[in-house]
Amino acid sequence: MYTVCVRDHMMIAHSFSGAVFGPAQRMHGATYVVDVEFRRADLDENGIVVDIGRAGEILRDILGALNYRNLDAEPDFHGRNTTTEFLARTVSERLAQKIRDGHLGPSARAVQSLRVTLHESHVAWAAFEGELEAQ
Amino acid sequence: MYTVCVRDHMMIAHSFSGAVFGPAQRMHGATYVVDVEFRRADLDENGIVVDIGRAGEILRDILGALNYRNLDAEPDFHGRNTTTEFLARTVSERLAQKIRDGHLGPSARAVQSLRVTLHESHVAWAAFEGELEAQ
Amino acid sequence: MYTVCVRDHMMIAHSFSGAVFGPAQRMHGATYVVDVEFRRADLDENGIVVDIGRAGEILRDILGALNYRNLDAEPDFHGRNTTTEFLARTVSERLAQKIRDGHLGPSARAVQSLRVTLHESHVAWAAFEGELEAQ
Amino acid sequence: MYTVCVRDHMMIAHSFSGAVFGPAQRMHGATYVVDVEFRRADLDENGIVVDIGRAGEILRDILGALNYRNLDAEPDFHGRNTTTEFLARTVSERLAQKIRDGHLGPSARAVQSLRVTLHESHVAWAAFEGELEAQ
Amino acid sequence: MYTVCVRDHMMIAHSFSGAVFGPAQRMHGATYVVDVEFRRADLDENGIVVDIGRAGEILRDILGALNYRNLDAEPDFHGRNTTTEFLARTVSERLAQKIRDGHLGPSARAVQSLRVTLHESHVAWAAFEGELEAQ
Amino acid sequence: MYTVCVRDHMMIAHSFSGAVFGPAQRMHGATYVVDVEFRRADLDENGIVVDIGRAGEILRDILGALNYRNLDAEPDFHGRNTTTEFLARTVSERLAQKIRDGHLGPSARAVQSLRVTLHESHVAWAAFEGELEAQ
Repeated sequence: MYTVCVRDHMMIAHSFSGAVFGPAQRMHGATYVVDVEFRRADLDENGIVVDIGRAGEILRDILGALNYRNLDAEPDFHGRNTTTEFLARTVSERLAQKIRDGHLGPSARAVQSLRVTLHESHVAWAAFEGELEAQ
Repeated sequence: MYTVCVRDHMMIAHSFSGAVFGPAQRMHGATYVVDVEFRRADLDENGIVVDIGRAGEILRDILGALNYRNLDAEPDFHGRNTTTEFLARTVSERLAQKIRDGHLGPSARAVQSLRVTLHESHVAWAAFEGELEAQ
Repeated sequence: MYTVCVRDHMMIAHSFSGAVFGPAQRMHGATYVVDVEFRRADLDENGIVVDIGRAGEILRDILGALNYRNLDAEPDFHGRNTTTEFLARTVSERLAQKIRDGHLGPSARAVQSLRVTLHESHVAWAAFEGELEAQ
Repeated sequence: MYTVCVRDHMMIAHSFSGAVFGPAQRMHGATYVVDVEFRRADLDENGIVVDIGRAGEILRDILGALNYRNLDAEPDFHGRNTTTEFLARTVSERLAQKIRDGHLGPSARAVQSLRVTLHESHVAWAAFEGELEAQ
Repeated sequence: MYTVCVRDHMMIAHSFSGAVFGPAQRMHGATYVVDVEFRRADLDENGIVVDIGRAGEILRDILGALNYRNLDAEPDFHGRNTTTEFLARTVSERLAQKIRDGHLGPSARAVQSLRVTLHESHVAWAAFEGELEAQ
Repeated sequence: MYTVCVRDHMMIAHSFSGAVFGPAQRMHGATYVVDVEFRRADLDENGIVVDIGRAGEILRDILGALNYRNLDAEPDFHGRNTTTEFLARTVSERLAQKIRDGHLGPSARAVQSLRVTLHESHVAWAAFEGELEAQ
């Protein structure tokens, strides 16, 4: 199995609802350093998993729709806790849709699974991984 | 599949028995930077894998029982080589027991597997991963 | 010259005022991984620059007063852009005051300068350094 | 499952063929920081996955045959794009052969799978993983 | 003193002349992860050292003129060993010229010094630092 | 000013004397990831600060005399607390002596200062820097 990973980041504000979050119930924020892994069993005819340049652009677009925003005010997340885990899945699903829609090119349809990791500090991160077809 | 990871560290002394260890047969030591990953298929009702605050406290407790110690003198490890691999499993088993005992809360019983990684330097690490029920 | 550094982090929300900030004029946030360096010409009688345990606690206190907060709503920062540069100086000044007040112990009064670095992502950081007496 | 990882690096020149590579069709180069993971279900009688000293030497030998070279001029890679993905598999296959030939000692034949990761920058990496018998 | 740092990277091929370089006399390559630090005594009216967005763009332009190239074939470097040290100075001088030419805006003329670090692997880096006026 | 840095590591056991050290008064250990920076105003005729290959070998020799050892039992450190700060100076002085003795070659005598950093964990490090002639 081959994997290719690209990294980018976003800086957002949000607050959480639920006693388990303690002081994180207050409005605060995070830098998420985002790693996206693309996996497939065989390389394409160019010897690659995906076009890494395009992959980076698509990731930048997806993060751009979240970056420099207060997620509490985003209609997509109304009534949801935008935890690191939840956001990892959100980025993964949006990326899966882009691949299915052909934005990574026809060869990228052979990508089997994605793993999205959001590093929230030097001591904590969360990830979501899933088969491409299941997302 | 969702993963959440928390990081902490410990600083221990030990020595190894067996020619394969070369100079590491002498009394020496290590800083282990410890990553613990918790995995489950679905998020709980708060949108999280585990309460990351509690997870960090439990990890600190487990490492606290090893930290600033000469592991050669610990009864639990009598006659054992406390290699990085072995210690990764030790931390994982102690953590699994804490989860089964409810120290991470009732929701954390849905955690399916753990992965514990001990970074011993900038060029070497070891990990142990296992299903929670099997540990 | 000797230096000792300890690391911690905080997660805050804020917004900036001024066209130069572009999309960062919106409410957003950041994780700041904070490195504090203590510098002095000679070690104390224990062979250390500062008591690293106490230093970590004082840093945690200082960051705790900012952590999980919307800095736009903090009276201390009213009408100010809480840029990474500005916050590096804020942390440095608060730390210098703690040292002058003896919270790091009498030996720590020999600390000559501080350097505080705030890492805001994997591709950007800012720092402030100054003589202890001047802050 | 236990994993042990060792890290080393190599510095090579190459060029790619295919419009998808854009400016990387020109002669350029890369530092690859290489992580090799060895996996097995149980530890050997010394409490280890592999002899980490020997593992490091074998990795250095394998990278030494590629290091400080223009890969376009290497007969082994004639007519191939030596992408990061492709090189991850190359290193993995050469390592698997070394293990099967006994260079890591008889105990290392219990290694079940390998994963080789090549970090090409702070924002991109590629990996290949496979069962030892299948390579 | 305040510092702001931005990071980017380039991937180049080159060879060195001189017995001291050993195998690096052959055509090879490197990924250089490049950190640029801007330093000044006081913040500007916006509370910043430089416009970090513009700084990143200028760095990308400077690295873009070197990226994906064989430096042995660049007229600017004819007869020179493009060592990591040398390239750190090259990037620093080109950046200093951009600042003097006003590409970072009028406020950035208060920048007093630059430090450019090129990380060539996980175990080696080189840097050049100098006063802005002297470059 | 030019800087070149090389990295290596050592794994040692020791204990400290003095109430300020708390649990670190017990026998424990550390991995020290060691960065050595060489500084000089001008490059030599090859375009380098030092021969990085030789520099790495000398660092390995110096660390080899400490590695895999209980520092409490080393005659050189009798009655001393081998704190991170203290060890940073020790490595720096031994390196300075090697340079003065010509082990880095005649050109390296132009090195003006050294900085040695020992990273003891992901959250703490200490350094010593000094002019070469003063050590």
